[in-house]
Amino acid sequence: MSTLVRAMKHNTKLRAIPIAFLGLIVFAPSAFAQDAAPLSVDEIAYSIDNLILFLSAVLVLFMQAGFAMVESGFNSAKNTVNIMFKNIIDLASGVFFYFLIGYGLMYGSSVLGGFLGFGGLGVSAESPDAVAGNLHPQVDFLFQAVFAATAATIVSGAVAGRMKISGYLIYSIVLTAIIYPISGFWKWGGGWLDQMGFYDFAGSLVVHAVGGFAALAAVIVLGPRIGRFGGSSTNPLPPSNMAMAALGVFILWVGWYGFNPGSQLAFAGAVNADAVMLIATNTTLAAATGTLFAMLYGWVKTGKPNLSYTLNGALGGLVGITANCDSVNNIEGLIIGAVAGVLVCVGMELLENLKIDDAVGAWSVHGLCGIWGGIATGIFGGHPLVAQIVGSIAIPVWAFVTAFVLFKVIKALGVLRVSPEEEQAGLDLSEHGVGAYHIAGEEA
Amino acid sequence: MSTLVRAMKHNTKLRAIPIAFLGLIVFAPSAFAQDAAPLSVDEIAYSIDNLILFLSAVLVLFMQAGFAMVESGFNSAKNTVNIMFKNIIDLASGVFFYFLIGYGLMYGSSVLGGFLGFGGLGVSAESPDAVAGNLHPQVDFLFQAVFAATAATIVSGAVAGRMKISGYLIYSIVLTAIIYPISGFWKWGGGWLDQMGFYDFAGSLVVHAVGGFAALAAVIVLGPRIGRFGGSSTNPLPPSNMAMAALGVFILWVGWYGFNPGSQLAFAGAVNADAVMLIATNTTLAAATGTLFAMLYGWVKTGKPNLSYTLNGALGGLVGITANCDSVNNIEGLIIGAVAGVLVCVGMELLENLKIDDAVGAWSVHGLCGIWGGIATGIFGGHPLVAQIVGSIAIPVWAFVTAFVLFKVIKALGVLRVSPEEEQAGLDLSEHGVGAYHIAGEEA
Amino acid sequence: MSTLVRAMKHNTKLRAIPIAFLGLIVFAPSAFAQDAAPLSVDEIAYSIDNLILFLSAVLVLFMQAGFAMVESGFNSAKNTVNIMFKNIIDLASGVFFYFLIGYGLMYGSSVLGGFLGFGGLGVSAESPDAVAGNLHPQVDFLFQAVFAATAATIVSGAVAGRMKISGYLIYSIVLTAIIYPISGFWKWGGGWLDQMGFYDFAGSLVVHAVGGFAALAAVIVLGPRIGRFGGSSTNPLPPSNMAMAALGVFILWVGWYGFNPGSQLAFAGAVNADAVMLIATNTTLAAATGTLFAMLYGWVKTGKPNLSYTLNGALGGLVGITANCDSVNNIEGLIIGAVAGVLVCVGMELLENLKIDDAVGAWSVHGLCGIWGGIATGIFGGHPLVAQIVGSIAIPVWAFVTAFVLFKVIKALGVLRVSPEEEQAGLDLSEHGVGAYHIAGEEA
Repeated sequence: MSTLVRAMKHNTKLRAIPIAFLGLIVFAPSAFAQDAAPLSVDEIAYSIDNLILFLSAVLVLFMQAGFAMVESGFNSAKNTVNIMFKNIIDLASGVFFYFLIGYGLMYGSSVLGGFLGFGGLGVSAESPDAVAGNLHPQVDFLFQAVFAATAATIVSGAVAGRMKISGYLIYSIVLTAIIYPISGFWKWGGGWLDQMGFYDFAGSLVVHAVGGFAALAAVIVLGPRIGRFGGSSTNPLPPSNMAMAALGVFILWVGWYGFNPGSQLAFAGAVNADAVMLIATNTTLAAATGTLFAMLYGWVKTGKPNLSYTLNGALGGLVGITANCDSVNNIEGLIIGAVAGVLVCVGMELLENLKIDDAVGAWSVHGLCGIWGGIATGIFGGHPLVAQIVGSIAIPVWAFVTAFVLFKVIKALGVLRVSPEEEQAGLDLSEHGVGAYHIAGEEA
Repeated sequence: MSTLVRAMKHNTKLRAIPIAFLGLIVFAPSAFAQDAAPLSVDEIAYSIDNLILFLSAVLVLFMQAGFAMVESGFNSAKNTVNIMFKNIIDLASGVFFYFLIGYGLMYGSSVLGGFLGFGGLGVSAESPDAVAGNLHPQVDFLFQAVFAATAATIVSGAVAGRMKISGYLIYSIVLTAIIYPISGFWKWGGGWLDQMGFYDFAGSLVVHAVGGFAALAAVIVLGPRIGRFGGSSTNPLPPSNMAMAALGVFILWVGWYGFNPGSQLAFAGAVNADAVMLIATNTTLAAATGTLFAMLYGWVKTGKPNLSYTLNGALGGLVGITANCDSVNNIEGLIIGAVAGVLVCVGMELLENLKIDDAVGAWSVHGLCGIWGGIATGIFGGHPLVAQIVGSIAIPVWAFVTAFVLFKVIKALGVLRVSPEEEQAGLDLSEHGVGAYHIAGEEA
Repeated sequence: MSTLVRAMKHNTKLRAIPIAFLGLIVFAPSAFAQDAAPLSVDEIAYSIDNLILFLSAVLVLFMQAGFAMVESGFNSAKNTVNIMFKNIIDLASGVFFYFLIGYGLMYGSSVLGGFLGFGGLGVSAESPDAVAGNLHPQVDFLFQAVFAATAATIVSGAVAGRMKISGYLIYSIVLTAIIYPISGFWKWGGGWLDQMGFYDFAGSLVVHAVGGFAALAAVIVLGPRIGRFGGSSTNPLPPSNMAMAALGVFILWVGWYGFNPGSQLAFAGAVNADAVMLIATNTTLAAATGTLFAMLYGWVKTGKPNLSYTLNGALGGLVGITANCDSVNNIEGLIIGAVAGVLVCVGMELLENLKIDDAVGAWSVHGLCGIWGGIATGIFGGHPLVAQIVGSIAIPVWAFVTAFVLFKVIKALGVLRVSPEEEQAGLDLSEHGVGAYHIAGEEA
């Protein structure tokens, strides 16, 4: 009976019934609440579609924890509070401003010839017809909002150690409210790239390359951390916590099962379920070969198996398969991941040679492998290669140029980079007034 | 065929078949196991209801990891083992004693005029009719048990650094077996608060305020940590690991998607799915504004963006929306979270001014924002304000008074507080004989 | 409409339609994509079966993060990078080689009189009939692959601190590609143990004992770490990070809800849903009593509540219930967990007395409690005790003997153990060239 009491109490069907009568209803026969309207197969399918998308959104949201761990683990201990702060705010501000502005821009009616959408502010709470494949606007928003937050937070690690928090907040808001939604509209909102046949299943370009190229613009405008390219070594800045970095990669890998399978957006019925199963396995295989080939690359190159390369290889494989996980077979998935694993390492070395200081390899992982994902969708996925090339150029260019201008503006406003003294002291103390770790002095 | 083999092997339908025949059955035609009884829509709906509630319970259980991380991250390194110990035991002992006693008290038949329930020991394993909205008693128990463990573990952080582990275990058992189930019965078991129209969807009061006010009673009886309010600074006790604290908040945020959406308790059908989508988005929006407004409050107040305030703001927003996430619209969700974000900060400052030492802000987050959640349910959620006020007073008073008496009894038993020497040495060494961190001496 | 656009865009039904027409289709009536073929109840059930198995696989994959945290937390800080490396590679290489070889061996057609299977390379991407209980081969593979990775990674912690990474990689590949699939076939592939009536629902033996006894063979061949059994104390090697170890146990506990409930392999319909609910609750109860009884054992034995014992007790309870979680009632689940909790402690003390250095208690947790799970399935689960005893001997013996030979071969190849100097320096520096933690010098 206890079950009955609660099922009825929580059942929103009962909401219309005057509260004063609840005491009686609680003891009514058990079939009351449900027998009133027997469920149709359509309603069941609708429930599955929306519930699985909701769970996918939860997994994607969990990726924020992964980013926070990866970024802080790879960076100096003295910037840990700052990185955590940026990641929690990226999520909070991403959700808030994407709710206010971004969602409408990205999925509204097409204006300006497919350049952006216009859909008003906020999100409808109205229930759609319960037909399979229809999504409730609330979960549709939620799923899209955590994607926007993901795009934003990619930059956080790249700029670690020298960017002012106030400047970062400006960037984060502009990216989630404007930059990301506009290029997102080009594809997922039905804009010009979509109309020309460009395909990006879950966002190798739409999400990851946007973040990765915004990160590249950011680190070029910012300049490298003090000591990063001076002196005898090119890396005098040891990682603070590799256990945490590894944990972050595991969490990101887990979260990707929301990112890719969730992007099917409909789950009931054999067609959708079958697609999700292929997507999930391809995602896994590409992550595996990304990991293994980055390990091999680093081992051959440096003589030792390099954990940073290996971890980033996993992420590169995941980014590379994101655009095409539904369009390729397992063997192609393995190949896409393997290439991505090598690209990640090559990309990090390239930036290092160019003396561009990307503190976590964000451009290599999300930018370079994002482009690879888009191209691979043409090579292996059966989508027209020309359209894939156009999209794989247009979106990175859009993200890089707008972010470059944005960071120049932030610089002009005087809130881009901390002083050398503050950088040396660490952003935790200079920007937040507290250090992250107080472990050593008190241990037994 | 391998799929068939395993599906049949694991299928419990086969359990009645003599084991000796299994060798044959394994090679029987594939449709055998399922075609025997074609599935009805009711059965499908029943599966969805129970499976999603099970997954929600898993998410709520994951919150224990979040609490452990938040509490240890915010506290001294020398008390980390102790905090981990309390959190794993809160879960284990919560499940065990809630199974033995608490579940029956909370969801049994009403006795003593709605003051408590009586349902015997243990949990039925009998399957209910497979009708949508009916829950299997086993998953119903599981979901409720992890809620009970959540309520218990809220106190763990508040009392960190000075409470004996034996006293803590007594508290933990009494809370999950008696205190929490009784006030829980008042609302969710159909007791007097439920009958007067009080509404608390997922437990701003029933769970969080119970934990928060038990924490307040605990820290008043215990007194502050040595050095907490002496000397020049009011906070000479730096947090040990802010990366871990942030990770904990991310995990709690993720786990809340089991806590709130799961509390719908039925998921099949458009009415339930629609409710869950609104609940999930409102939960997210309130967490976002909680984060942002706590950040702003701390920034204005101290001149720097404060990570502790910001993280606790996220939690406060989540607590505030818990009672009403199904009853308010998005804009109201944003407002509820924003107010909660400010309340968390104000509450922490209030206790500090009163020289009450709540080591993690447990009362502010769970107690104060729990009450706010209850009141907001009246202001915004369309539930009668008077009943909301009554419930928002009655439950905190119940938790505070019973916990106060309990901690006084624990004190009288001589197992409340460690000696000053033990406190200085840290509970890890004095209570558990081992330090948590051995990092510094061995690093490269 | 935005929902429609995306649902149609992502819907694989549309894949056959020439891309050039997409621009038009995007604005077609909303019901188009789904009304073409109304969903049957069978298809819905098929979706549920496959989607929940997919989510279970994600939870099991998450366990890799848990293992990484537990192993690194319990070990010296100087071996953290090495442990992280092994865990990410166990997952990647496990997935890759299980895809290439292992899956076919484990679930192919029986050859050699039930000794192994033969199923070719790779995994079918062909969709099965959408009948309830049929699984898509892709998700079936995914679920099995993460099980294989779990078996492999159990050894990682046991051998921590002295094994060469190259030797470890050889072990990891052989275990996931050959050793694990062969004994796995004996039961889950329909081999000789299955045919004689041996029962192991989710793998107390098939997964955990294989890993646990491979670990025992490994540590015997390897020998103890320097200083482990010399001098006055038997444990001069303090754990590096108990917070991380506890986090790992929480993650493993959470992941187990994929491991055990997922092993039902079919979820639609009351029979399956009911089974899953019992499985989930039994899993929880056994973990709880495992935790509590290990705590009590340690407390009585040493006078202090021991966190390592307690955490391992939780894992022992989980391993013990894995074979029989669908076959016992709640009270029996409590008993199985309690016994496992004590066994874990006894087992660790036994190895210590024998001067066998298992750095994390892997044999006690996974080997000893794995056998206990198999026997308990006979005592409590209603499965024939003789078959349970045979299986509970055969699988451990298989794993121990093959792993023993394997590690002897690795030793003969000269890639088993690092030099004493490398061991003293730590594997992070000697094998990977970088330390895991750089925290102390930079904190405020």
